[in-house]
Amino acid sequence: MYYIGVDLGGTNIAVGLVDKEGQILHQDSVPTGVGRPYEMILKDMADLVKKVVADSGHTMAEIESVGVGSPGAADTEKGEIVFANNLYWHFVPVRAELQKHLGAIPVSIDNDANVAALAEMVAGSAKGRRDVILLTLGTGVGGGVIVGGRIVGGHHHVGAEIGHMITVTDGEMCTCGNRGCFERYTSATALIRMGRQAVVDNPGSAIHVAVGGDMEKVTAKVVLDAAKSGDIIAMEIFERYVHHLAMGIVSLINIFDPEVIALGGGVSKAGDFLLDAVRADVEKHIFYKDIPHAEITISPLGNEAGIIGAAMLGAMGQI
Amino acid sequence: MYYIGVDLGGTNIAVGLVDKEGQILHQDSVPTGVGRPYEMILKDMADLVKKVVADSGHTMAEIESVGVGSPGAADTEKGEIVFANNLYWHFVPVRAELQKHLGAIPVSIDNDANVAALAEMVAGSAKGRRDVILLTLGTGVGGGVIVGGRIVGGHHHVGAEIGHMITVTDGEMCTCGNRGCFERYTSATALIRMGRQAVVDNPGSAIHVAVGGDMEKVTAKVVLDAAKSGDIIAMEIFERYVHHLAMGIVSLINIFDPEVIALGGGVSKAGDFLLDAVRADVEKHIFYKDIPHAEITISPLGNEAGIIGAAMLGAMGQI
Repeated sequence: MYYIGVDLGGTNIAVGLVDKEGQILHQDSVPTGVGRPYEMILKDMADLVKKVVADSGHTMAEIESVGVGSPGAADTEKGEIVFANNLYWHFVPVRAELQKHLGAIPVSIDNDANVAALAEMVAGSAKGRRDVILLTLGTGVGGGVIVGGRIVGGHHHVGAEIGHMITVTDGEMCTCGNRGCFERYTSATALIRMGRQAVVDNPGSAIHVAVGGDMEKVTAKVVLDAAKSGDIIAMEIFERYVHHLAMGIVSLINIFDPEVIALGGGVSKAGDFLLDAVRADVEKHIFYKDIPHAEITISPLGNEAGIIGAAMLGAMGQI
Repeated sequence: MYYIGVDLGGTNIAVGLVDKEGQILHQDSVPTGVGRPYEMILKDMADLVKKVVADSGHTMAEIESVGVGSPGAADTEKGEIVFANNLYWHFVPVRAELQKHLGAIPVSIDNDANVAALAEMVAGSAKGRRDVILLTLGTGVGGGVIVGGRIVGGHHHVGAEIGHMITVTDGEMCTCGNRGCFERYTSATALIRMGRQAVVDNPGSAIHVAVGGDMEKVTAKVVLDAAKSGDIIAMEIFERYVHHLAMGIVSLINIFDPEVIALGGGVSKAGDFLLDAVRADVEKHIFYKDIPHAEITISPLGNEAGIIGAAMLGAMGQI
C-alpha cells in the first residue's frame, strides 16, 4: 500500500510516494507559481503526482490516497481550502479539482502544521503515541495537536493556532493585532528581536562581535551560538526565551496532558542545549508533580514532515 | 433506556436516574463521609443507586450503565480514581468496587469538570454540538473540553486544567505553585480579592457601602452588583476581570476553535451583564475576524450537570 503526500507551499509543491510506515520512497517538486489561477496550480500538482508515481515504478492503481498539506485553513470534510493568505486562496475546491485529473482516488487535505504533527506521530519522535503536540519554532510559532490519534483541527478549521495562545495578557503587540501571543516570545523572530537589542545596548556582547555590530545580520543561530559560548548577554536572552517557551509548554500540558510535545522549526536545531534548559524549567513549574507528564523532545523530521504527514492523512483510520 | 449518574462530591454523593435525553427523572443523596475507607463510601454509593432505581419504580435490569463524576484524576479505562485530594483517595478501583454490589453493569468514571462539559453537550447550551468547552468560574476555574464529541481527558488523566493555563507569564502567585494561572484572574476568588482591596482603598465605593466596610463580607456577588449599579470602582474591577476572562477565551478559541464556550459556576450567575461584556472584548481580539468563531454562552445547568453528565458517560457512543 502506497500513499501520496503533497506539501503545498508558497514557493514549491513537493510530492512524495510514501509507504505505510511513513517512509518517503520517491519525491519531486515544482514551483507553486503563486498568483496563477488555482486550476493551473492544481493541474501542475496532479501532473507531479502522476510523474512521481511513474518515476518510482508504480501505477496510480497502487495508490491508496492522495493527501495535501496546505497553509491556511482547510475544510477537511469538503476537501476545500477555506483560505490560505500566502496563496491568495479562498474556498478552493482542492479535492474536486484534483479528482478531475486523478480520477476517483480519495483526496484528503489539512493544514500544514496539523499534517506535520501527524508525521511526528507516524515517523517522528512520537511514533506509536496518540496524544501529541508539535510546536514549530520558526518565523512564527505553528502548532499541530493530536488527541487520541485524531487531529484537533477546530470546528471552523482554524484550531491549533498555538502561536496565538495568549501567554502574556496585554503583553507585546503581535502581528495578529492582539497582545502577548506565545509566538511574540518564542519564535525565531523573538530571539532575533532580543539579539538586535543586545547589539545596540551591549557592544561587548558576543552577539555584537559575531555580526560586526550590524543589527541586520542577527539571526536566531547567532544568538543561540553566543549563548552556547557562555556570553552573559546572550545567556540572559536565551533564558528569557526558554522561560516563555517553558511556560507555554506547561500551559499546554495543563490543557491537553499529551504524551509527547515535540519541538520543530529552525530554533529546535539548537538541540540538547535548548531541550535541557526547557525541560528543567518545565519540571520546576509543572502542576501535578507526582504524576508523569509529557515527554518534551526535538522533532527528528525536517522538511519531509510535510510530505509524510500529508500522505498519512489517507491512512488515518489505519494508524 | 435509563442511565444512572453519580455526582461524587466532598460533602455529598448525589445519584440520579436519567433518560437518554439527559433529563433527571429521580434523584437522591447521602453524605459522602469523607475520611472513611473507600469501600464504605462506595458501598453507600451502590446502596443509593439501588434505592434511586427502586424509588423511581424501575429495576436494575432497566439500567444501561452507571456513570460516576469525581473530583481529581480518573483513569477512564481502568475505572479507577488515580487521585482525588479532597477525598483522600489514591488509586481507588471505583468500577470494580461498585460492580461487587451492583453486578456486571457497565460502570464509567471521569473527572467532574469533564462530566459537566458532557452534560452541557447533551442537555445544556451546547445541545447537539460536538466541540464544546465549559468553564466553571467558581472558587477556582474548572474546565471541561469536548472535541468531536469526545472528552479530552489527557493521556495521564489530568488534562483540561484550564484554570491553570498560564495567561500572565510571571504574573500573580497561584495556589498550584506557579505564577499567572488563568484562575488567578478569573475565579470568584479573584473578584473577591479585588473587591477587598477596594474596601481598603476606596471607602466611597459601593462595595465598601454594601459590606459596611467589612472586608470579610465581600463576595463575588457584592462586587458584581456594585458594578451593575454603575459604581466606578466596581466597574473598573469588573472590566479588569472581564478582560482577563476574554483573553483566556480568545486563547481557547485559538487553541481549540470550538463551537461553544459555556460559562458556568457562581460568577456566571451575573448572566447577560457578564456575557455582553465578555463577548464584546472577545470580538475585539479575535484572530480570524472574517471566520465564524465559538458562541460564548452561559450554562443553563446548575448542580444537576454533575448527575446528567455522569449518566451520559455510559451513553457516549450513542450521543
